[in-house]
Amino acid sequence: MRVHVPIHLRWGDLDAYNHVNNVELMRVFEEARVRAFWRSDDEGGDVDQGMALIEAEVGSDTMTLIARHEVEYVAPIPYQRGPLDVRMWIGALGGASLDVCYEVYPDRESDLLFARASSTIVLVDAASGKPRRITAREREAWQRYLEEPVPFTRKR
Amino acid sequence: MRVHVPIHLRWGDLDAYNHVNNVELMRVFEEARVRAFWRSDDEGGDVDQGMALIEAEVGSDTMTLIARHEVEYVAPIPYQRGPLDVRMWIGALGGASLDVCYEVYPDRESDLLFARASSTIVLVDAASGKPRRITAREREAWQRYLEEPVPFTRKR
Amino acid sequence: MRVHVPIHLRWGDLDAYNHVNNVELMRVFEEARVRAFWRSDDEGGDVDQGMALIEAEVGSDTMTLIARHEVEYVAPIPYQRGPLDVRMWIGALGGASLDVCYEVYPDRESDLLFARASSTIVLVDAASGKPRRITAREREAWQRYLEEPVPFTRKR
Amino acid sequence: MRVHVPIHLRWGDLDAYNHVNNVELMRVFEEARVRAFWRSDDEGGDVDQGMALIEAEVGSDTMTLIARHEVEYVAPIPYQRGPLDVRMWIGALGGASLDVCYEVYPDRESDLLFARASSTIVLVDAASGKPRRITAREREAWQRYLEEPVPFTRKR
Repeated sequence: MRVHVPIHLRWGDLDAYNHVNNVELMRVFEEARVRAFWRSDDEGGDVDQGMALIEAEVGSDTMTLIARHEVEYVAPIPYQRGPLDVRMWIGALGGASLDVCYEVYPDRESDLLFARASSTIVLVDAASGKPRRITAREREAWQRYLEEPVPFTRKR
Repeated sequence: MRVHVPIHLRWGDLDAYNHVNNVELMRVFEEARVRAFWRSDDEGGDVDQGMALIEAEVGSDTMTLIARHEVEYVAPIPYQRGPLDVRMWIGALGGASLDVCYEVYPDRESDLLFARASSTIVLVDAASGKPRRITAREREAWQRYLEEPVPFTRKR
Repeated sequence: MRVHVPIHLRWGDLDAYNHVNNVELMRVFEEARVRAFWRSDDEGGDVDQGMALIEAEVGSDTMTLIARHEVEYVAPIPYQRGPLDVRMWIGALGGASLDVCYEVYPDRESDLLFARASSTIVLVDAASGKPRRITAREREAWQRYLEEPVPFTRKR
Repeated sequence: MRVHVPIHLRWGDLDAYNHVNNVELMRVFEEARVRAFWRSDDEGGDVDQGMALIEAEVGSDTMTLIARHEVEYVAPIPYQRGPLDVRMWIGALGGASLDVCYEVYPDRESDLLFARASSTIVLVDAASGKPRRITAREREAWQRYLEEPVPFTRKR
């Protein structure tokens, strides 16, 4: 199952080529991750909160560290006022880490793929600074978002 | 008359102090400006479009250049999922420039002021690179957003 | 007395107008501030360290909060490989705050002014979160950087 | 053969975890790429210019588009005043594209690896918007930077 996370661009995401800068798109993915995975008192109702089991606060028990990103840029992204539709799912569930997959489209109905990506997130115990196991509760909640990893088209 | 422009924060706007970085708040103001002033085929219905008379496209006739910013930070801004409420109006209408005023709050109902700011925008003819007069049509449309400039509390 | 702080641009500082974005220039000022005011074990020898009396570490006793910025953009800034020359001094020394003034030029020899700005910095005790007095040692060290505030040309 | 590109961090690259944000590190790689590959009248003498055959100007004949990034984060990166040492080489030379590999260290002497990455760059004819062949001159110049691709440790 996939979640749709609406993320607004900013005009400032454009670079001198007048397209959304490839680095800024990683920022969009980061924001989609935060909205999908982090629990909050102020949901804004914008995503299925089934994924959201990680405390959003810095100072909470768990830090989520990025171990790896892979991204393929398929089409240049112009500025648009409506939010991008970031479609997210879990491509792999490990012991202390998970792979999040993304596809980004102009909106929920569109099939114009702008980019596809995957991020490996490691759950780290904030106190010890060491990776910590995914809990049974997290695994159960995340299981239903588990799908095939995003199919990349370019060889490594 | 003021327009309310909802702008979403990004977790990446936080700095090492775990507050929205003061520079990133200027980015939020920039985005509010773009949404309020620039015409678009894709309004997203998120602002009163009476202000929106400037073509959004790079390559259009008019460039909007920033000549000046002044900003006062009143309270630290934490990350929130719901959009900030950026309240904007015009504090001064000149010959080829205007002053945009802003106040930013957590939401439309709140009276917790995070920051106040003012920006001087110069309309520049893209072809000549020279300032160009505000048109009668622009002046007429903008007139009703004209209010007293935002009252700053700190001496210059 | 002024300090010269060399700050490199990044191509990513450019916006769709192919000039350094006005918000990103505030980032340049922030970096110049950090380099001029914060003590460090790793000076890089790039600034007079007489100003540098504030511990650079988050988690140190003092937080430096920005209360106010004012900036005037005089000329568009293209990307350049060599560092910008940010000329900084103190425009006012208060009880718990100081005003830092900036002028930014292409290099140390140039008199092509890109922008001028001023920032009010409040020293905050990290433990209490309350403003704390500038110490006698800080005042003595900073006194010799005290000059007339930067002369702004646009009315408030 | 590898080039060493010194890139300064900015305090603003830190995120709420007080480490260089993973997205901002991509910005550092972008800047290293620009400095290594783009010709300029103002070299700053900071890199071997043998690689630098692409016109730096927007509006030049060639656009360099990013088709793919892969990055592995090995160790958290604190703020430092001295420039990071980005070590770059070419991992593959295709018909109209090349893979750039990176390793980033605290400085030129250090063997503390912060991250490794690879980017696929496509050369695009600015007029037609279509990929264009790497020229014989570019191929000859780039040949000597061709090495084995960076060895990633995490499975795709």
